[in-house]
Amino acid sequence: MTNIPYSDETRKVGLVRVMTLEKQELVDQQGKLIEGLFPSIEVTSRCIEDQPRGIYDAEAERIAEPKIVKVAKELESEGAEVVIISCAADPALGMARDELNIPVIGAGSATAAVALNLGQSVGVIGIGEAVPEAMAGILGDRLLSYAKIEGVKTALDLHLEGAKERVLQAARDLAANDKVEVIAFACAGLSTLNVDDPIEKEFGIYTVNPVIASGIQALYTLMRKGIGGR
Amino acid sequence: MTNIPYSDETRKVGLVRVMTLEKQELVDQQGKLIEGLFPSIEVTSRCIEDQPRGIYDAEAERIAEPKIVKVAKELESEGAEVVIISCAADPALGMARDELNIPVIGAGSATAAVALNLGQSVGVIGIGEAVPEAMAGILGDRLLSYAKIEGVKTALDLHLEGAKERVLQAARDLAANDKVEVIAFACAGLSTLNVDDPIEKEFGIYTVNPVIASGIQALYTLMRKGIGGR
Repeated sequence: MTNIPYSDETRKVGLVRVMTLEKQELVDQQGKLIEGLFPSIEVTSRCIEDQPRGIYDAEAERIAEPKIVKVAKELESEGAEVVIISCAADPALGMARDELNIPVIGAGSATAAVALNLGQSVGVIGIGEAVPEAMAGILGDRLLSYAKIEGVKTALDLHLEGAKERVLQAARDLAANDKVEVIAFACAGLSTLNVDDPIEKEFGIYTVNPVIASGIQALYTLMRKGIGGR
Repeated sequence: MTNIPYSDETRKVGLVRVMTLEKQELVDQQGKLIEGLFPSIEVTSRCIEDQPRGIYDAEAERIAEPKIVKVAKELESEGAEVVIISCAADPALGMARDELNIPVIGAGSATAAVALNLGQSVGVIGIGEAVPEAMAGILGDRLLSYAKIEGVKTALDLHLEGAKERVLQAARDLAANDKVEVIAFACAGLSTLNVDDPIEKEFGIYTVNPVIASGIQALYTLMRKGIGGR
Protein backbone atom coordinates (compact mmCIF):
# COMPACT_ATOMS: atom_id res chain seq x y z
CA MET A 1 0.00 0.00 0.00
CA THR A 2 1.38 3.41 -0.89
CA ASN A 3 0.61 6.47 1.13
CA ILE A 4 -0.52 8.71 -1.70
CA PRO A 5 -1.27 11.97 0.03
CA TYR A 6 2.14 12.11 1.68
CA SER A 7 4.06 10.48 -1.12
CA ASP A 8 7.06 12.38 -2.43
CA GLU A 9 6.40 10.85 -5.79
CA THR A 10 3.91 12.58 -8.08
CA ARG A 11 1.15 10.26 -9.23
CA LYS A 12 -0.37 10.82 -12.63
CA VAL A 13 -4.08 10.92 -13.37
CA GLY A 14 -5.50 11.46 -16.86
CA LEU A 15 -8.82 13.26 -17.26
CA VAL A 16 -10.90 13.15 -20.45
CA ARG A 17 -13.00 16.26 -21.06
CA VAL A 18 -15.93 15.20 -23.25
CA MET A 19 -16.20 18.66 -24.77
CA THR A 20 -13.87 20.61 -27.07
CA LEU A 21 -12.61 23.68 -25.23
CA GLU A 22 -10.27 26.32 -26.62
CA LYS A 23 -8.89 27.94 -23.48
CA GLN A 24 -6.37 25.78 -21.60
CA GLU A 25 -7.55 27.37 -18.35
CA LEU A 26 -11.00 25.89 -18.91
CA VAL A 27 -9.58 22.54 -19.99
CA ASP A 28 -7.61 22.34 -16.74
CA GLN A 29 -10.31 23.62 -14.40
CA GLN A 30 -11.58 20.22 -13.23
CA GLY A 31 -8.09 18.77 -12.87
CA LYS A 32 -7.09 21.73 -10.70
CA LEU A 33 -9.96 20.90 -8.36
CA ILE A 34 -8.48 17.42 -7.81
CA GLU A 35 -4.90 18.71 -7.56
CA GLY A 36 -6.02 21.22 -4.94
CA LEU A 37 -7.34 18.43 -2.74
CA PHE A 38 -4.50 15.97 -3.34
CA PRO A 39 -1.29 17.86 -4.01
CA SER A 40 0.77 14.78 -4.83
CA ILE A 41 -1.58 14.01 -7.73
CA GLU A 42 -0.86 15.59 -11.11
CA VAL A 43 -3.82 15.67 -13.49
CA THR A 44 -3.39 15.89 -17.26
CA SER A 45 -6.66 16.96 -18.86
CA ARG A 46 -7.45 16.63 -22.55
CA CYS A 47 -10.54 17.33 -24.65
CA ILE A 48 -12.10 15.17 -27.32
CA GLU A 49 -12.05 16.75 -30.79
CA ASP A 50 -14.76 18.61 -32.69
CA GLN A 51 -17.50 18.60 -30.05
CA PRO A 52 -17.73 22.16 -28.75
CA ARG A 53 -21.18 21.50 -27.28
CA GLY A 54 -20.06 18.32 -25.53
CA ILE A 55 -22.41 15.43 -24.77
CA TYR A 56 -26.01 16.52 -24.35
CA ASP A 57 -28.03 13.68 -25.95
CA ALA A 58 -27.71 10.07 -27.14
CA GLU A 59 -26.48 10.98 -30.61
CA ALA A 60 -23.76 13.30 -29.25
CA GLU A 61 -22.73 10.50 -26.90
CA ARG A 62 -22.46 7.94 -29.72
CA ILE A 63 -20.27 10.27 -31.77
CA ALA A 64 -18.07 10.99 -28.78
CA GLU A 65 -17.36 7.38 -27.80
CA PRO A 66 -14.45 6.50 -30.13
CA LYS A 67 -12.92 9.92 -29.47
CA ILE A 68 -13.04 9.32 -25.73
CA VAL A 69 -11.30 5.94 -26.09
CA LYS A 70 -8.64 7.58 -28.30
CA VAL A 71 -7.89 10.32 -25.76
CA ALA A 72 -7.93 7.83 -22.87
CA LYS A 73 -5.38 5.64 -24.66
CA GLU A 74 -3.17 8.67 -25.33
CA LEU A 75 -3.25 9.61 -21.65
CA GLU A 76 -2.31 6.03 -20.70
CA SER A 77 0.58 5.98 -23.16
CA GLU A 78 1.83 9.25 -21.67
CA GLY A 79 2.06 7.77 -18.19
CA ALA A 80 -1.35 8.15 -16.55
CA GLU A 81 -1.89 5.50 -13.86
CA VAL A 82 -5.66 5.91 -13.90
CA VAL A 83 -7.98 7.75 -16.29
CA ILE A 84 -11.20 9.59 -15.43
CA ILE A 85 -13.92 10.04 -18.06
CA SER A 86 -15.40 13.29 -16.85
CA CYS A 87 -19.05 12.92 -17.81
CA ALA A 88 -22.01 11.79 -15.70
CA ALA A 89 -23.20 9.51 -18.51
CA ASP A 90 -20.02 7.38 -18.32
CA PRO A 91 -19.69 7.46 -22.13
CA ALA A 92 -17.40 4.75 -23.55
CA LEU A 93 -16.55 3.49 -20.06
CA GLY A 94 -16.82 -0.20 -20.94
CA MET A 95 -14.94 0.31 -24.22
CA ALA A 96 -12.16 2.22 -22.50
CA ARG A 97 -11.86 -0.47 -19.81
CA ASP A 98 -11.51 -3.07 -22.56
CA GLU A 99 -8.84 -1.09 -24.40
CA LEU A 100 -6.73 0.25 -21.54
CA ASN A 101 -4.52 -1.62 -19.09
CA ILE A 102 -5.11 0.82 -16.24
CA PRO A 103 -8.24 1.54 -14.19
CA VAL A 104 -10.81 3.80 -15.85
CA ILE A 105 -13.20 5.79 -13.64
CA GLY A 106 -16.51 7.14 -14.94
CA ALA A 107 -17.76 10.31 -13.27
CA GLY A 108 -21.35 9.03 -13.34
CA SER A 109 -20.55 5.78 -11.50
CA ALA A 110 -18.30 7.62 -9.07
CA THR A 111 -20.99 10.18 -8.26
CA ALA A 112 -23.71 7.58 -7.78
CA ALA A 113 -21.39 5.50 -5.62
CA VAL A 114 -20.52 8.36 -3.28
CA ALA A 115 -24.21 9.36 -3.09
CA LEU A 116 -25.16 5.89 -1.85
CA ASN A 117 -22.58 6.27 0.87
CA LEU A 118 -23.97 9.56 2.15
CA GLY A 119 -27.63 8.76 2.65
CA GLN A 120 -30.56 6.47 2.02
CA SER A 121 -32.46 8.51 -0.61
CA VAL A 122 -30.91 10.44 -3.45
CA GLY A 123 -32.16 13.34 -5.55
CA VAL A 124 -30.35 14.19 -8.78
CA ILE A 125 -29.98 17.48 -10.66
CA GLY A 126 -28.78 17.58 -14.24
CA ILE A 127 -29.09 19.00 -17.72
CA GLY A 128 -30.65 16.06 -19.60
CA GLU A 129 -34.23 14.88 -19.80
CA ALA A 130 -33.61 12.14 -17.23
CA VAL A 131 -30.95 10.71 -14.90
CA PRO A 132 -28.16 9.14 -17.00
CA GLU A 133 -28.51 5.36 -17.10
CA ALA A 134 -24.95 5.03 -15.72
CA MET A 135 -26.13 6.69 -12.51
CA ALA A 136 -29.70 5.36 -12.38
CA GLY A 137 -28.46 1.78 -12.68
CA ILE A 138 -26.29 2.14 -9.58
CA LEU A 139 -28.75 4.23 -7.55
CA GLY A 140 -31.56 1.72 -8.17
CA ASP A 141 -34.62 2.28 -5.99
CA ARG A 142 -32.71 4.71 -3.81
CA LEU A 143 -33.05 7.26 -6.62
CA LEU A 144 -35.97 9.33 -5.38
CA SER A 145 -36.34 12.23 -7.78
CA TYR A 146 -34.78 14.19 -10.61
CA ALA A 147 -34.81 17.91 -11.34
CA LYS A 148 -33.74 19.23 -14.72
CA ILE A 149 -32.06 22.62 -14.60
CA GLU A 150 -34.32 24.97 -16.54
CA GLY A 151 -32.88 26.79 -19.55
CA VAL A 152 -29.71 24.68 -19.65
CA LYS A 153 -29.32 22.38 -22.65
CA THR A 154 -25.57 21.74 -22.67
CA ALA A 155 -22.83 22.07 -20.04
CA LEU A 156 -21.79 25.29 -21.78
CA ASP A 157 -25.09 26.89 -20.78
CA LEU A 158 -24.07 26.53 -17.12
CA HIS A 159 -21.90 29.59 -17.68
CA LEU A 160 -24.80 31.77 -18.87
CA GLU A 161 -26.03 34.55 -16.63
CA GLY A 162 -28.58 33.31 -14.14
CA ALA A 163 -27.59 29.64 -14.55
CA LYS A 164 -26.32 29.32 -11.00
CA GLU A 165 -29.66 30.55 -9.65
CA ARG A 166 -31.42 27.98 -11.85
CA VAL A 167 -29.22 25.23 -10.38
CA LEU A 168 -30.20 26.36 -6.89
CA GLN A 169 -33.86 26.37 -7.95
CA ALA A 170 -33.54 22.75 -9.13
CA ALA A 171 -31.97 21.86 -5.77
CA ARG A 172 -34.82 23.70 -4.02
CA ASP A 173 -37.37 21.62 -5.95
CA LEU A 174 -35.67 18.41 -4.78
CA ALA A 175 -35.24 19.64 -1.21
CA ALA A 176 -39.00 20.23 -0.97
CA ASN A 177 -39.19 16.47 -0.42
CA ASP A 178 -38.06 15.77 3.15
CA LYS A 179 -36.87 12.31 2.23
CA VAL A 180 -34.07 13.54 -0.04
CA GLU A 181 -30.85 13.16 1.98
CA VAL A 182 -28.32 13.64 -0.81
CA ILE A 183 -28.28 15.69 -4.01
CA ALA A 184 -26.01 14.22 -6.69
CA PHE A 185 -24.90 16.31 -9.66
CA ALA A 186 -25.55 14.55 -12.97
CA CYS A 187 -23.28 16.80 -15.01
CA ALA A 188 -19.52 17.08 -14.52
CA GLY A 189 -19.78 20.75 -15.48
CA LEU A 190 -21.60 21.40 -12.20
CA SER A 191 -18.41 20.44 -10.34
CA THR A 192 -16.69 23.78 -10.89
CA LEU A 193 -19.74 26.02 -10.52
CA ASN A 194 -19.29 26.36 -6.73
CA VAL A 195 -22.84 25.36 -5.98
CA ASP A 196 -21.96 22.66 -3.44
CA ASP A 197 -21.65 24.96 -0.45
CA PRO A 198 -24.74 27.09 -1.20
CA ILE A 199 -26.90 23.96 -1.57
CA GLU A 200 -25.54 22.33 1.58
CA LYS A 201 -25.95 25.52 3.58
CA GLU A 202 -29.40 26.49 2.31
CA PHE A 203 -31.01 23.07 2.40
CA GLY A 204 -28.90 21.07 4.84
CA ILE A 205 -28.46 18.30 2.28
CA TYR A 206 -25.23 16.59 1.29
CA THR A 207 -24.14 17.18 -2.29
CA VAL A 208 -22.00 14.96 -4.52
CA ASN A 209 -19.59 16.68 -6.89
CA PRO A 210 -18.72 14.43 -9.88
CA VAL A 211 -15.11 15.58 -10.23
CA ILE A 212 -14.31 15.21 -6.53
CA ALA A 213 -16.14 11.86 -6.42
CA SER A 214 -14.04 10.71 -9.40
CA GLY A 215 -10.88 11.93 -7.69
CA ILE A 216 -11.73 9.94 -4.57
CA GLN A 217 -12.30 6.77 -6.59
CA ALA A 218 -9.07 7.35 -8.52
CA LEU A 219 -7.28 7.72 -5.19
CA TYR A 220 -8.34 4.21 -4.20
CA THR A 221 -6.61 2.76 -7.24
CA LEU A 222 -3.49 4.86 -6.67
CA MET A 223 -3.20 3.65 -3.09
CA ARG A 224 -2.97 0.09 -4.28
CA LYS A 225 0.58 -0.43 -5.44
CA GLY A 226 1.30 -2.78 -8.27
CA ILE A 227 -2.37 -3.13 -8.97
CA GLY A 228 -2.98 -5.25 -12.03
CA GLY A 229 -6.29 -5.31 -13.86
CA ARG A 230 -7.30 -7.80 -16.50
CA MET B 1 -13.45 22.69 0.54
CA THR B 2 -10.76 21.64 3.00
CA ASN B 3 -7.56 20.01 1.95
CA ILE B 4 -7.68 17.04 4.28
CA PRO B 5 -4.48 15.18 3.50
CA TYR B 6 -2.35 18.26 4.07
CA SER B 7 -4.46 19.80 6.80
CA ASP B 8 -2.66 20.72 10.01
CA GLU B 9 -5.85 20.02 11.86
CA THR B 10 -6.57 16.44 12.87
CA ARG B 11 -9.94 15.22 11.62
CA LYS B 12 -11.80 12.67 13.71
CA VAL B 13 -13.36 9.50 12.37
CA GLY B 14 -15.27 7.03 14.56
CA LEU B 15 -15.22 3.34 13.70
CA VAL B 16 -17.67 0.81 15.10
CA ARG B 17 -16.29 -2.71 15.43
CA VAL B 18 -19.28 -5.08 15.31
CA MET B 19 -17.47 -7.64 17.45
CA THR B 20 -16.38 -7.59 21.07
CA LEU B 21 -12.59 -7.74 21.24
CA GLU B 22 -10.48 -7.76 24.39
CA LYS B 23 -7.09 -6.63 23.12
CA GLN B 24 -6.92 -2.92 22.30
CA GLU B 25 -4.35 -3.71 19.60
CA LEU B 26 -6.98 -5.77 17.76
CA VAL B 27 -9.69 -3.15 18.33
CA ASP B 28 -7.46 -0.51 16.72
CA GLN B 29 -6.13 -2.61 13.84
CA GLN B 30 -8.59 -1.38 11.18
CA GLY B 31 -8.36 2.25 12.27
CA LYS B 32 -4.57 2.05 12.00
CA LEU B 33 -4.94 0.98 8.38
CA ILE B 34 -6.87 4.21 7.63
CA GLU B 35 -4.50 6.37 9.73
CA GLY B 36 -1.55 4.93 7.84
CA LEU B 37 -3.00 6.09 4.54
CA PHE B 38 -4.30 9.47 5.74
CA PRO B 39 -2.07 10.73 8.54
CA SER B 40 -4.23 13.76 9.32
CA ILE B 41 -7.14 11.46 10.16
CA GLU B 42 -7.45 10.14 13.71
CA VAL B 43 -9.63 7.07 14.08
CA THR B 44 -11.30 6.14 17.36
CA SER B 45 -12.44 2.52 17.24
CA ARG B 46 -14.90 0.98 19.65
CA CYS B 47 -16.52 -2.46 19.91
CA ILE B 48 -20.14 -3.32 20.54
CA GLU B 49 -20.73 -5.20 23.80
CA ASP B 50 -21.20 -8.90 24.44
CA GLN B 51 -20.75 -10.26 20.92
CA PRO B 52 -17.36 -11.97 20.88
CA ARG B 53 -18.30 -13.85 17.69
CA GLY B 54 -19.45 -10.69 15.90
CA ILE B 55 -22.09 -10.72 13.17
CA TYR B 56 -22.27 -13.99 11.27
CA ASP B 57 -26.00 -14.50 10.61
CA ALA B 58 -29.33 -12.63 10.61
CA GLU B 59 -30.01 -13.24 14.29
CA ALA B 60 -26.59 -11.98 15.36
CA GLU B 61 -27.17 -8.91 13.18
CA ARG B 62 -30.55 -8.17 14.76
CA ILE B 63 -29.08 -8.38 18.27
CA ALA B 64 -26.18 -6.14 17.27
CA GLU B 65 -28.24 -3.30 15.75
CA PRO B 66 -29.15 -1.26 18.86
CA LYS B 67 -25.63 -1.75 20.22
CA ILE B 68 -24.17 -0.37 16.99
CA VAL B 69 -26.39 2.73 17.14
CA LYS B 70 -25.38 3.23 20.79
CA VAL B 71 -21.66 3.09 20.02
CA ALA B 72 -22.08 5.31 16.93
CA LYS B 73 -23.86 7.95 19.03
CA GLU B 74 -21.11 7.81 21.65
CA LEU B 75 -18.47 8.36 18.98
CA GLU B 76 -20.43 11.33 17.60
CA SER B 77 -20.79 12.87 21.06
CA GLU B 78 -17.04 12.51 21.56
CA GLY B 79 -16.28 14.54 18.44
CA ALA B 80 -16.26 12.18 15.47
CA GLU B 81 -17.11 14.03 12.23
CA VAL B 82 -18.07 10.85 10.43
CA VAL B 83 -18.70 7.30 11.66
CA ILE B 84 -17.90 4.04 9.87
CA ILE B 85 -19.86 0.88 10.66
CA SER B 86 -17.19 -1.68 9.93
CA CYS B 87 -19.23 -4.61 8.65
CA ALA B 88 -20.01 -5.66 5.08
CA ALA B 89 -23.68 -6.20 5.98
CA ASP B 90 -24.14 -2.50 6.85
CA PRO B 91 -25.97 -3.44 10.05
CA ALA B 92 -28.06 -0.62 11.56
CA LEU B 93 -26.90 1.81 8.85
CA GLY B 94 -30.34 3.36 8.26
CA MET B 95 -31.03 3.55 12.01
CA ALA B 96 -27.68 5.19 12.71
CA ARG B 97 -28.27 7.71 9.90
CA ASP B 98 -31.62 8.57 11.47
CA GLU B 99 -30.13 9.00 14.93
CA LEU B 100 -26.86 10.79 14.18
CA ASN B 101 -26.29 14.28 12.81
CA ILE B 102 -23.08 13.34 10.99
CA PRO B 103 -22.52 11.12 7.95
CA VAL B 104 -22.50 7.39 8.61
CA ILE B 105 -20.60 5.12 6.22
CA GLY B 106 -21.36 1.40 5.94
CA ALA B 107 -18.43 -0.80 4.92
CA GLY B 108 -20.69 -2.92 2.69
CA SER B 109 -21.98 0.03 0.66
CA ALA B 110 -18.50 1.53 0.48
CA THR B 111 -16.99 -1.73 -0.79
CA ALA B 112 -19.70 -2.27 -3.40
CA ALA B 113 -19.40 1.33 -4.55
CA VAL B 114 -15.64 1.17 -5.06
CA ALA B 115 -16.01 -2.19 -6.84
CA LEU B 116 -18.39 -0.66 -9.40
CA ASN B 117 -15.78 1.98 -10.08
CA LEU B 118 -13.02 -0.51 -10.80
CA GLY B 119 -14.61 -2.77 -13.37
CA GLN B 120 -17.72 -4.00 -15.13
CA SER B 121 -18.18 -7.38 -13.41
CA VAL B 122 -17.63 -8.11 -9.75
CA GLY B 123 -16.91 -11.31 -7.84
CA VAL B 124 -17.32 -11.36 -4.07
CA ILE B 125 -15.63 -13.45 -1.38
CA GLY B 126 -17.03 -13.64 2.12
CA ILE B 127 -17.87 -15.73 5.15
CA GLY B 128 -21.68 -15.91 4.92
CA GLU B 129 -23.92 -18.13 2.83
CA ALA B 130 -24.48 -15.36 0.27
CA VAL B 131 -23.46 -11.80 -0.60
CA PRO B 132 -24.85 -9.41 2.06
CA GLU B 133 -27.97 -7.64 0.77
CA ALA B 134 -26.30 -4.27 1.46
CA MET B 135 -23.71 -5.12 -1.20
CA ALA B 136 -25.88 -7.13 -3.59
CA GLY B 137 -28.42 -4.29 -3.81
CA ILE B 138 -25.76 -1.85 -5.00
CA LEU B 139 -23.90 -4.30 -7.27
CA GLY B 140 -27.14 -5.30 -9.03
CA ASP B 141 -26.60 -7.32 -12.19
CA ARG B 142 -22.89 -6.51 -12.16
CA LEU B 143 -22.50 -9.03 -9.32
CA LEU B 144 -21.24 -12.04 -11.22
CA SER B 145 -20.37 -14.65 -8.61
CA TYR B 146 -19.80 -15.39 -4.94
CA ALA B 147 -17.29 -17.63 -3.23
CA LYS B 148 -17.67 -18.59 0.41
CA ILE B 149 -14.40 -19.06 2.24
CA GLU B 150 -14.36 -22.70 3.31
CA GLY B 151 -14.05 -23.49 7.00
CA VAL B 152 -14.68 -19.91 8.12
CA LYS B 153 -17.91 -19.28 10.01
CA THR B 154 -17.15 -16.00 11.77
CA ALA B 155 -14.59 -13.24 11.24
CA LEU B 156 -12.64 -14.72 14.17
CA ASP B 157 -11.98 -17.86 12.13
CA LEU B 158 -10.00 -15.76 9.65
CA HIS B 159 -7.17 -15.92 12.18
CA LEU B 160 -7.08 -19.72 12.27
CA GLU B 161 -4.16 -21.52 10.71
CA GLY B 162 -4.67 -22.05 6.99
CA ALA B 163 -7.40 -19.41 6.72
CA LYS B 164 -5.34 -17.16 4.48
CA GLU B 165 -4.82 -20.02 2.03
CA ARG B 166 -8.58 -20.67 2.05
CA VAL B 167 -9.19 -17.01 1.20
CA LEU B 168 -6.81 -17.32 -1.74
CA GLN B 169 -8.61 -20.50 -2.82
CA ALA B 170 -11.94 -18.63 -2.84
CA ALA B 171 -10.34 -15.90 -4.96
CA ARG B 172 -8.95 -18.58 -7.28
CA ASP B 173 -12.45 -20.03 -7.72
CA LEU B 174 -13.75 -16.59 -8.76
CA ALA B 175 -10.78 -15.84 -10.98
CA ALA B 176 -11.47 -19.01 -12.98
CA ASN B 177 -14.17 -16.94 -14.68
CA ASP B 178 -12.46 -14.59 -17.12
CA LYS B 179 -15.23 -12.04 -16.80
CA VAL B 180 -14.50 -11.22 -13.16
CA GLU B 181 -12.62 -7.90 -13.18
CA VAL B 182 -12.87 -7.04 -9.49
CA ILE B 183 -12.94 -9.10 -6.30
CA ALA B 184 -14.72 -7.36 -3.44
CA PHE B 185 -14.29 -8.54 0.15
CA ALA B 186 -17.63 -9.10 1.90
CA CYS B 187 -16.17 -9.18 5.40
CA ALA B 188 -14.44 -6.26 7.08
CA GLY B 189 -12.16 -8.75 8.82
CA LEU B 190 -10.55 -9.54 5.47
CA SER B 191 -9.23 -5.95 5.38
CA THR B 192 -6.33 -6.62 7.74
CA LEU B 193 -5.43 -10.09 6.53
CA ASN B 194 -3.02 -8.77 3.87
CA VAL B 195 -4.61 -10.77 1.10
CA ASP B 196 -5.09 -7.81 -1.30
CA ASP B 197 -1.61 -7.91 -2.80
CA PRO B 198 -1.38 -11.70 -3.17
CA ILE B 199 -4.74 -11.81 -4.99
CA GLU B 200 -3.89 -8.89 -7.28
CA LYS B 201 -0.49 -10.36 -8.09
CA GLU B 202 -1.58 -13.96 -8.60
CA PHE B 203 -4.76 -13.30 -10.58
CA GLY B 204 -4.30 -9.80 -12.01
CA ILE B 205 -7.66 -8.74 -10.60
CA TYR B 206 -8.42 -5.58 -8.63
CA THR B 207 -9.46 -6.16 -5.03
CA VAL B 208 -11.65 -3.96 -2.82
CA ASN B 209 -10.73 -3.76 0.85
CA PRO B 210 -13.76 -2.77 2.99
CA VAL B 211 -11.84 -0.69 5.52
CA ILE B 212 -9.90 1.27 2.89
CA ALA B 213 -13.06 1.72 0.82
CA SER B 214 -14.82 3.07 3.92
CA GLY B 215 -11.89 5.39 4.62
CA ILE B 216 -12.09 6.77 1.08
CA GLN B 217 -15.81 7.43 1.39
CA ALA B 218 -15.29 9.04 4.80
CA LEU B 219 -12.64 11.24 3.22
CA TYR B 220 -15.21 12.65 0.79
CA THR B 221 -17.34 13.86 3.67
CA LEU B 222 -14.34 15.32 5.51
CA MET B 223 -13.31 17.30 2.43
CA ARG B 224 -16.64 19.06 2.39
CA LYS B 225 -16.46 21.79 4.98
CA GLY B 226 -19.52 22.82 6.91
CA ILE B 227 -21.41 19.91 5.44
CA GLY B 228 -24.89 19.69 6.90
CA GLY B 229 -27.00 16.58 6.62
CA ARG B 230 -30.66 16.33 7.45
